[in-house]
Amino acid sequence: MPAPVTDSDAPADRVATSDPTGLHRVLDTSDGRRVLPQAAQRLDTRRELWPDEVRVRVETLNLDAASFRQLEGTHCVDGRHDGDAVRREVLEIVAERGKMQNPVTGSGGMLIGTVEEVGPESPLGLEVGDHIATLVSLSLTPLVIEDRLERWDGRSEQVPADGYAILFGRSIAARIPDDLEPGLSLAVMDVCGAPALTARLVQQYDAPVVAVIGGAGKSGSLSLAAARREGASRTVGVVPHEAEATLLRDAGLADDVVVADARDAIALRDAVESTGGLADITVVCVDVPGCEGGAILATAERGTVIFFSMATSFSAAALGAEGVAADVTMLVGNGYTPGHAAYAMQLLRESDGVRRLFERRL
Amino acid sequence: MPAPVTDSDAPADRVATSDPTGLHRVLDTSDGRRVLPQAAQRLDTRRELWPDEVRVRVETLNLDAASFRQLEGTHCVDGRHDGDAVRREVLEIVAERGKMQNPVTGSGGMLIGTVEEVGPESPLGLEVGDHIATLVSLSLTPLVIEDRLERWDGRSEQVPADGYAILFGRSIAARIPDDLEPGLSLAVMDVCGAPALTARLVQQYDAPVVAVIGGAGKSGSLSLAAARREGASRTVGVVPHEAEATLLRDAGLADDVVVADARDAIALRDAVESTGGLADITVVCVDVPGCEGGAILATAERGTVIFFSMATSFSAAALGAEGVAADVTMLVGNGYTPGHAAYAMQLLRESDGVRRLFERRL
Repeated sequence: MPAPVTDSDAPADRVATSDPTGLHRVLDTSDGRRVLPQAAQRLDTRRELWPDEVRVRVETLNLDAASFRQLEGTHCVDGRHDGDAVRREVLEIVAERGKMQNPVTGSGGMLIGTVEEVGPESPLGLEVGDHIATLVSLSLTPLVIEDRLERWDGRSEQVPADGYAILFGRSIAARIPDDLEPGLSLAVMDVCGAPALTARLVQQYDAPVVAVIGGAGKSGSLSLAAARREGASRTVGVVPHEAEATLLRDAGLADDVVVADARDAIALRDAVESTGGLADITVVCVDVPGCEGGAILATAERGTVIFFSMATSFSAAALGAEGVAADVTMLVGNGYTPGHAAYAMQLLRESDGVRRLFERRL
Repeated sequence: MPAPVTDSDAPADRVATSDPTGLHRVLDTSDGRRVLPQAAQRLDTRRELWPDEVRVRVETLNLDAASFRQLEGTHCVDGRHDGDAVRREVLEIVAERGKMQNPVTGSGGMLIGTVEEVGPESPLGLEVGDHIATLVSLSLTPLVIEDRLERWDGRSEQVPADGYAILFGRSIAARIPDDLEPGLSLAVMDVCGAPALTARLVQQYDAPVVAVIGGAGKSGSLSLAAARREGASRTVGVVPHEAEATLLRDAGLADDVVVADARDAIALRDAVESTGGLADITVVCVDVPGCEGGAILATAERGTVIFFSMATSFSAAALGAEGVAADVTMLVGNGYTPGHAAYAMQLLRESDGVRRLFERRL
């Protein structure tokens, strides 16, 4: 266990050695249990590095969709979004918690920045000056904002910011390719867990039918591309309205494109079934609550539902499946699969359709 | 689509034919979306059956552990539980929603009763007079309580009750064996999804190490028995204190029994690792929040975590795994696997240890 590089301001009663999970920066001490940074109320944001850490100069924060939607909804009067109030709340959260974790959704996002200092024992293979995206959630990343987010109007998920963030021994970061616009790289890396896990699942079935709820979105379009690439016999993209259906049809990523409100369980089931039968694998990529029942009903017996939406309710999924006697496997969409960033970048480079959908959103 | 047996009091604007999922009893109409009974705010509890339904005379409700714990915690003053207040709240919930679904946990429980009437098109194979347990959650079962729960003191999960409940075409119910005490059968059936899914997972690995968090509990002890039966190379039971460790050791269900606070992620990881290495399959069976991180850390790369606790947070699981770059599969514990009730009963009959742990709790 390495000793800290600088411990001049380390409280005497706290751990002085680092843990690859970042445990040494958790400040919660109320009940004596050791929680991980993601579950912590508050993180230690000191600039000084433990030997296995990396400090990153922040350039852009990318709030996750569920979190931003929640913040926007809270600060909305008469249908008008109050961007200043959203910005103030983000600043307050970061100041209070030492990380950007939406207290309601529990989610965070990710960031782009430049490596500022690398601890002598960091296993991440980064060098000072590297331009990177972090692939661990902001909800567990020590973060200090130094510019009051003055360049952000509080109206988009991408937040220009100056400040610093800390990566742990077991964090994940990826170098941003030189040939792609940084915003595009960030957008791809933000959701790269979805296509990687979809790909793994498709390989476990024999030419499955794959339905992606929210197929025209970022994680959705990549998941559709992954499904086709790994041998899906048929891919179905479900979108909420005709405008998105046109976009997805033009992108050419799905064999069938259908319109349905994913929160209407019966409508979703019927829409998927109408394409030639239920799905073997259903991937939920829409960040609105209440899609669990429909996703389960749209999935064939012994099929699998992968929930990538942070708006998923655990109990709604568990009890929803039981409630209709559905023998489906339900996966919590793990944002990490080895090689996920490179795989997603490859999908983007191979597919003009994916690229067009992403560039539209920048 | 069958017409209702009795539709004299059916509002003219509502569906007049039944759906096997129970959709026809959902009263939510605010926004025009059709949600399933589990997600509904309010269910139609009319006595009259649609042709594929079954009405059950209720004998006992069994509130699920997470729900009961939440209710107890809410009505607790100076460390004393107010059973009357808990009873009042359950009555209010059922009167308001037409089902027993805890608004905080989203969960319900199950019930024991006697079949009172069987619709002519019911596919469940039940007969009037059958003594059954329902294996779908109370959170989606139309329920009317007719005795004000007068025989219940509000201090235990098992609630003596008189009233009726409705089963749909796609519901699940199991006849209660004559040779077992009904309370024992109910307790086993209540958690029978856990051992069935554990068994399926163990079969997918080659002699895996299986750790069960909450191994001395109901779902936990059955899951340990299932893991051993299906070929686990080693089973580990994790319990919160020495008293439970003694009980579990006496039951002889686990190769190793270790004590750890499952909410302390590092303690949980270290406890499991100390038995000879991390687990290939970790089954979470404790109904307290905050166990996601520890369960993930206690699991080996390419291992699987099954979350059976209704206290599981979806975002804590998803982001927790990503946050420590853990390549683990995470399953939402589906309460339904075909044959689950019979399998759990078999485990109980085969294992004196399981039976002793269950009988202790009655």
